[in-house]
Amino acid sequence: MSLGRFVLKGLSPSRTKLALRMSRDHRRPSPRDESPVPDARAPSHAERCRTLATQATSATLSTIARDPNGFPYGSLVTLAVDDTGRPLLLLSELAEHTCNLQARPEASLLLTEPVGTHDEPLALGRVTILGLCAKVSDAERADARDTFLKHQPGARYYVEFKDFGFYRLEPAALRYIGGFGRMSWVGAEEYRAAEPDSLAALASGILRHMNEDHAEAVLACAIGLAGVADATSASMTAVDRYGFEMAAVTPKGPRAVRLAFGATIATADEVRGAIVEMAHRAPHGSRASRQFP
Amino acid sequence: MSLGRFVLKGLSPSRTKLALRMSRDHRRPSPRDESPVPDARAPSHAERCRTLATQATSATLSTIARDPNGFPYGSLVTLAVDDTGRPLLLLSELAEHTCNLQARPEASLLLTEPVGTHDEPLALGRVTILGLCAKVSDAERADARDTFLKHQPGARYYVEFKDFGFYRLEPAALRYIGGFGRMSWVGAEEYRAAEPDSLAALASGILRHMNEDHAEAVLACAIGLAGVADATSASMTAVDRYGFEMAAVTPKGPRAVRLAFGATIATADEVRGAIVEMAHRAPHGSRASRQFP
Repeated sequence: MSLGRFVLKGLSPSRTKLALRMSRDHRRPSPRDESPVPDARAPSHAERCRTLATQATSATLSTIARDPNGFPYGSLVTLAVDDTGRPLLLLSELAEHTCNLQARPEASLLLTEPVGTHDEPLALGRVTILGLCAKVSDAERADARDTFLKHQPGARYYVEFKDFGFYRLEPAALRYIGGFGRMSWVGAEEYRAAEPDSLAALASGILRHMNEDHAEAVLACAIGLAGVADATSASMTAVDRYGFEMAAVTPKGPRAVRLAFGATIATADEVRGAIVEMAHRAPHGSRASRQFP
Repeated sequence: MSLGRFVLKGLSPSRTKLALRMSRDHRRPSPRDESPVPDARAPSHAERCRTLATQATSATLSTIARDPNGFPYGSLVTLAVDDTGRPLLLLSELAEHTCNLQARPEASLLLTEPVGTHDEPLALGRVTILGLCAKVSDAERADARDTFLKHQPGARYYVEFKDFGFYRLEPAALRYIGGFGRMSWVGAEEYRAAEPDSLAALASGILRHMNEDHAEAVLACAIGLAGVADATSASMTAVDRYGFEMAAVTPKGPRAVRLAFGATIATADEVRGAIVEMAHRAPHGSRASRQFP
């Protein structure tokens, strides 16, 4: 079946474009990043997975149920990841998911961007980490405890309960979905070797600040550097060490664009400086600033 | 192994009490509700599951992966439930989870209370609905479409895409976890027959209003009717058609209590009226009002 013919039939051009993108992106494997501006340097999917894993504090654990036997069983867990990206769980030995794991170690964890990052749930970035999940050995327990409590300080109230134990999921394969039209399988080794984004913890504050106090600079970047000549407004929707993404409003509808920073960036001040500099460098930057103060 | 002896060894009395409660609540089956005040009328777990299902707009779908074969695979979906509580999904036929379902229909959906209902993720109420998940027949598609779009109006943009189809999960068993120490298995028939809570959509607004504008009435109820004589403050933490729950602060630590309304209640005005009336009826209501205006 040709996906192209399949989705084109009876659809408007814009829907066809979206449908084609969605169809293409469901193919596997598709390890390359799909950024709105193809030449703008962007985090790899492995890097995005590591960043998501570093930020997640809760997740859905999927295990294989014993009763009803063989059904996948989703449950809520808190987690921490170690410095190679392996998720650690602190589980009650009495809980369903733990009994499931003791019978069958096959598992996955679904980690999702914080709700509120986007209005539309399906626009949230997420990763499913699949692998075997087993109890941490006695020799490794102290390390696991330190890592877990650093990320989950509230767990100190029950970490010493005798029926609680640490479990670790050893990543075997990862499925990354970065909202609409950005998805791929990521290998475990590529994931382990990737670095989480240095701006991750700052990103939401940076977006708020840039959209509240530097809207004219963002718009100038959209018009002058990202090529959205008819943009009437623009807001930053994502930022990472390599660049930032914008949603531009145009008379023809919304457009998503990405711009790369000149160099890899590590702090909020560097982001503001880079974007203000880019806005001044933009051909229509001054005009945009006057039109949309 | 005796759970009692197991958890008592080496634990403080308060930890032992919590551990015993957690241990007891992990046993199956345990169909009766565990409310903080045993004689306060409370929703059944089946009713709580129906309420959660009616309110959820997104969930984690767990399916059985094809590659790596046999691993449980968690993914993010939007959903709507029909009037018997059966979840409906609108899935791309190209997505991993859909291909998984076409090979093996065993599935579960984890539905969770909105993040923000509690600070601690593990305090969130949630239900795992396990069952077979299959494509809705052509004859039922129009009904499924109406139900889905009523709850997910944003899906109108892709509901007609040719590679999207409706899937329905037929509940076979449900695992309810109402935060700490309140959990049980719920039968599919009991779930189907239960009614969602009439106050569910209003609850967060009621809690905010009562805690902001009627804190003294809430405290009077905690002291005079729920028996927390040494409460220094109290806030409402949950409300349903049968009653409400409070977190009371005492010199000895926090206490969770529940009070039942005199009659089943359907509107926010009725809740306010009932609680203000209860506060006046409380033996120490007037004293509490004076002390904590």
